[in-house]
Amino acid sequence: MTEASDTLVEEVQARFDDLTILEYEFDNVEIELARKANALNAPLYKRRAEVIAKIPHFWALVFGRAPPEVETYIQPSDEKAFALYLDTFEVIHFEIDDPKGSPRSFSLKFGFKENEYFKDKVLEKKFWFRKTSDWEGLVSEPVKIHWKKGQDMTFGLTDAAYALAQAKKRLPPGNTDKSKERALPEYKALADKIEESEESSASFFALFGFVSSWRYVSAEESGKIRQTEAENLAKVKRGELVEEPDSDEDNENDEDDDHDYQETEVFPGGDEVAILIAEDMWPSAIKYYKRNHDDDDSDDDDMDDVSVNDRANENDDDSDEELDIRALVNKGRKEPTSNSPPMPPPARKKQRKA
Amino acid sequence: MTEASDTLVEEVQARFDDLTILEYEFDNVEIELARKANALNAPLYKRRAEVIAKIPHFWALVFGRAPPEVETYIQPSDEKAFALYLDTFEVIHFEIDDPKGSPRSFSLKFGFKENEYFKDKVLEKKFWFRKTSDWEGLVSEPVKIHWKKGQDMTFGLTDAAYALAQAKKRLPPGNTDKSKERALPEYKALADKIEESEESSASFFALFGFVSSWRYVSAEESGKIRQTEAENLAKVKRGELVEEPDSDEDNENDEDDDHDYQETEVFPGGDEVAILIAEDMWPSAIKYYKRNHDDDDSDDDDMDDVSVNDRANENDDDSDEELDIRALVNKGRKEPTSNSPPMPPPARKKQRKA
Repeated sequence: MTEASDTLVEEVQARFDDLTILEYEFDNVEIELARKANALNAPLYKRRAEVIAKIPHFWALVFGRAPPEVETYIQPSDEKAFALYLDTFEVIHFEIDDPKGSPRSFSLKFGFKENEYFKDKVLEKKFWFRKTSDWEGLVSEPVKIHWKKGQDMTFGLTDAAYALAQAKKRLPPGNTDKSKERALPEYKALADKIEESEESSASFFALFGFVSSWRYVSAEESGKIRQTEAENLAKVKRGELVEEPDSDEDNENDEDDDHDYQETEVFPGGDEVAILIAEDMWPSAIKYYKRNHDDDDSDDDDMDDVSVNDRANENDDDSDEELDIRALVNKGRKEPTSNSPPMPPPARKKQRKA
Repeated sequence: MTEASDTLVEEVQARFDDLTILEYEFDNVEIELARKANALNAPLYKRRAEVIAKIPHFWALVFGRAPPEVETYIQPSDEKAFALYLDTFEVIHFEIDDPKGSPRSFSLKFGFKENEYFKDKVLEKKFWFRKTSDWEGLVSEPVKIHWKKGQDMTFGLTDAAYALAQAKKRLPPGNTDKSKERALPEYKALADKIEESEESSASFFALFGFVSSWRYVSAEESGKIRQTEAENLAKVKRGELVEEPDSDEDNENDEDDDHDYQETEVFPGGDEVAILIAEDMWPSAIKYYKRNHDDDDSDDDDMDDVSVNDRANENDDDSDEELDIRALVNKGRKEPTSNSPPMPPPARKKQRKA
């Protein structure tokens, strides 16, 4: 190489370093904005929860109108469980103020009434935003669902996922030998169960068994990477060379990347589904709820002109709308119920046409 | 209906009004956050532009790594034009501080070098966020591209779209008679051209002819709706009944909703593509740019361990990487050029595995 092109390489490298520093600063702005958003929206979410508490089946109706990427995972039996027993729902950014955590971590917290499926009143699924040297994303830990006898909608998937996670925890701390994990009886049990169940459509509740779209990453591993990155960035800023960590140390967890981690994943793509719920359905829940009313009047021109406060057409409306919610709520019930409230008149907004 | 159920209806209606008020307040928080984001990111975007100005082909390389939903619209000829002539690119939220506008409106502003395709140095495509009584979304106006003779990559689509938009402007102001629009010779010319071109893949530049995924909505029409909504909201807050606007007045623009507005749309789905560019590619441009280097070393294990500041392996790297960029930059050129700079060593991050 000529001297001139050496200089050029160094110039281009300098630009590359500038971009790395900028990327880090963009990240910081994003974190600041996420905290600001959380603070500004918190009182509104609180008020929304108070209003929702007075609207029967609110969350069932929201999940009933989920975007297609989520809806495809909601089976008729899930829908029935939501309609009859889903009482509260909340998204919590539980690491928003934790300097070692990430504002991108969140949990989906479902509150259920007493029901025939499981004993749990609350099922909370946590997703941690973590990174390795060459990956970043959401990881989770299987949540134990205390299914009632013969009522497991996932046919053993969540139990098997939970059992494997517990068995892994009993391995020596810091175990990075993947073959030891694969030798666990719980590993084979889960892999077999997943293979068996591939024919049938998984219940939405299998999401509680989700681990990762790649592999589990611990808080310790992620923390080390963050620290190294911060140190390297400081060096880049000072114009110093960054020493490459010993590759054995850096890659100890990645050495058998070829392994198919998804062999024991009960809900492939669960992170994408969770993100859609947390970032779209949760903030826009009112919009999704209202769609139940908007779509009902789509083939009834008179109703397009009914104001949200116009009670004149009430008597015409609510028989139709009741049918809809009742159909949902009564799914699987033996006799009709008369406890469902009449629905409000349709909103003026129709669903976005795009 | 019984008196008891009447009361119930009123209660449910009250909850519905509460949700409407909350929706409005969520919207306000979103606007506030958009302004805050704009203010915090502006200096970073300015610095990024300064760094990018020193990196040849930066934006061509970013668009070359576009997400699939965008990439599918970038034809080889578009890629060539970007590689050789795309000089600057910017997303501008031009209504961010306009109380009558929307922070969701934005423009895509492309700066080009002197080239053989068109005379324009700047092509700016504006998207306005507007609403009607039952739709909201982005609308745009066709941008005139001054194609050089025989070089129109859209084979007349942008010209025909622009001609129709101009012809519509010559109709009496406030014309809402769709049949008059359809009787314009420019209407048939465009519809025919779109039908003709359906066999071939449209150039990305056809995006400059985009109007709407539904129909064009003027600032006046959108402004009226916003005002009515604000007034209605104020009434709802005071617990007053909202009077429904006269349906003739409300729906005058929508009376022939059955009409297929997409008959004259040169880039169906253009709003979705623009949103991806503005909300994903623009903020994450550095990430997309770096992917060019990350993917090159994906089958070279040694390179995974090269730090961004480690210049040791430089001589091994850059021949490979030069080939890549040169292939892109030289596409269609008759003789090889030696002006391309050597590329920086690969970044440590590989592409997200998910």
